[in-house]
Amino acid sequence: MKITPKYFEDFNVGYTFETEPTLISKNEIIDFASKYDPQLFHLDEEKAKKGPFGQLTSSGFMTLGKSFTQIFLTGIFDGTSMGAWGIDELRWTKPVCPGDLLKTKVEVLETKRSSKNPKKGTVRLKHTVTNHNKEVVMTWISNQMLKTK
Amino acid sequence: MKITPKYFEDFNVGYTFETEPTLISKNEIIDFASKYDPQLFHLDEEKAKKGPFGQLTSSGFMTLGKSFTQIFLTGIFDGTSMGAWGIDELRWTKPVCPGDLLKTKVEVLETKRSSKNPKKGTVRLKHTVTNHNKEVVMTWISNQMLKTK
Repeated sequence: MKITPKYFEDFNVGYTFETEPTLISKNEIIDFASKYDPQLFHLDEEKAKKGPFGQLTSSGFMTLGKSFTQIFLTGIFDGTSMGAWGIDELRWTKPVCPGDLLKTKVEVLETKRSSKNPKKGTVRLKHTVTNHNKEVVMTWISNQMLKTK
Repeated sequence: MKITPKYFEDFNVGYTFETEPTLISKNEIIDFASKYDPQLFHLDEEKAKKGPFGQLTSSGFMTLGKSFTQIFLTGIFDGTSMGAWGIDELRWTKPVCPGDLLKTKVEVLETKRSSKNPKKGTVRLKHTVTNHNKEVVMTWISNQMLKTK
């Protein structure tokens, strides 16, 4: 679903939106891991079978980037994002595996205009990522900076 | 510097180690952004000049993956890592730009054996990532699971 770009003032506490699903593939898991998280359970299908998850799993960093990309592709931050200054309480609650289809629900927890720069504000967002079995695989809170009007 | 792999019991509060430096390149920033963080200030050198940072900057997710990879390549978690269950208080404190050389210092904050499974424990690690000008560009705390002996 496409969302009209929103400025800081457009976000109200409690507002929610959801992304389109994104597919996690074996090749992408391995390619990402080779550069950004070269642990054997993200990198080698055979060796992963003897690892802590019993199978190949996505790097949590990849799951994070895939989820954020789906959020960004809604268009909600187009031309209004000024980057994020941090993440709080990120939790990887279930392994993410090849063939998983992930969706992200986003909820506004808090909004705060910058005291130093009235041209920007922080929107604190809670993200819940679920797989096709409706299991929560990751949650995190981002501190997203947005332009004011 | 190579570090002998460590099990849960080998980590004591206050122990620190540091990674080798890693170079951030323009091509890698753009390639990563195209898949995991397609904001224009990570994706397009010309448009980034008019963006919030005035130049092309690394996705914070890429900085995270680059930093973790340097940690992993020390060998400290070889065969002992059981993945991580979360991140706390991640802060992006300075933009990361093409040509930056990043190092990560890691400090043990806390260790806790699993109450459910004596074969594993969590080591809570504070990470401080600095550039070649000794500026802190990112900090975060990970909750890393490790095998016990």
